[in-house]
Amino acid sequence: MVINAMEQIVKHLLDSYKEKLGMNCFCETCKENVFALVLNKVQPRYVSDYEKVAYVKANYIDKQEMTSLQVKLAECAKIVSDNPLCEEMKKRGDR
Amino acid sequence: MVINAMEQIVKHLLDSYKEKLGMNCFCETCKENVFALVLNKVQPRYVSDYEKVAYVKANYIDKQEMTSLQVKLAECAKIVSDNPLCEEMKKRGDR
Repeated sequence: MVINAMEQIVKHLLDSYKEKLGMNCFCETCKENVFALVLNKVQPRYVSDYEKVAYVKANYIDKQEMTSLQVKLAECAKIVSDNPLCEEMKKRGDR
Repeated sequence: MVINAMEQIVKHLLDSYKEKLGMNCFCETCKENVFALVLNKVQPRYVSDYEKVAYVKANYIDKQEMTSLQVKLAECAKIVSDNPLCEEMKKRGDR
């Protein structure tokens, strides 16, 4: 089994910043769309077991790496917020 | 839940070509190391559900995309084969 360590890092970041992203909708669908979009924009870091995820996480102690990831998260949140694909937003007719 | 569609595509390719890769060892560890290495070298294609994996797979009907992926697979197989990290190869003292 292989794991993209970025999944854990981005998930943690998304959970920490969700209030600050100013999204119109933060339902499960919109959250997953932001998650997938960010993961498509960052270099994947696949490792072959869970223990090795820590080595990748260690890179993100570096402030510049983390800031760059936060910027990508904010950009993707804006894209999803401006173009929501969830049922909730379709119902509201906000699109 | 999000899925990197490339995981399925690369896994299928690895299974199809394993005989032709000429690796010294094709134990589970070496196989996973090739898998992780290839996934780190290709653009991730995260989708938010299994049904959407088909859209990504459709791109790989294109011969050029598939050839480029096969080349990456062969390169990564050579790296792992030349530098095996598995217990089996350590025991054999082939390193």
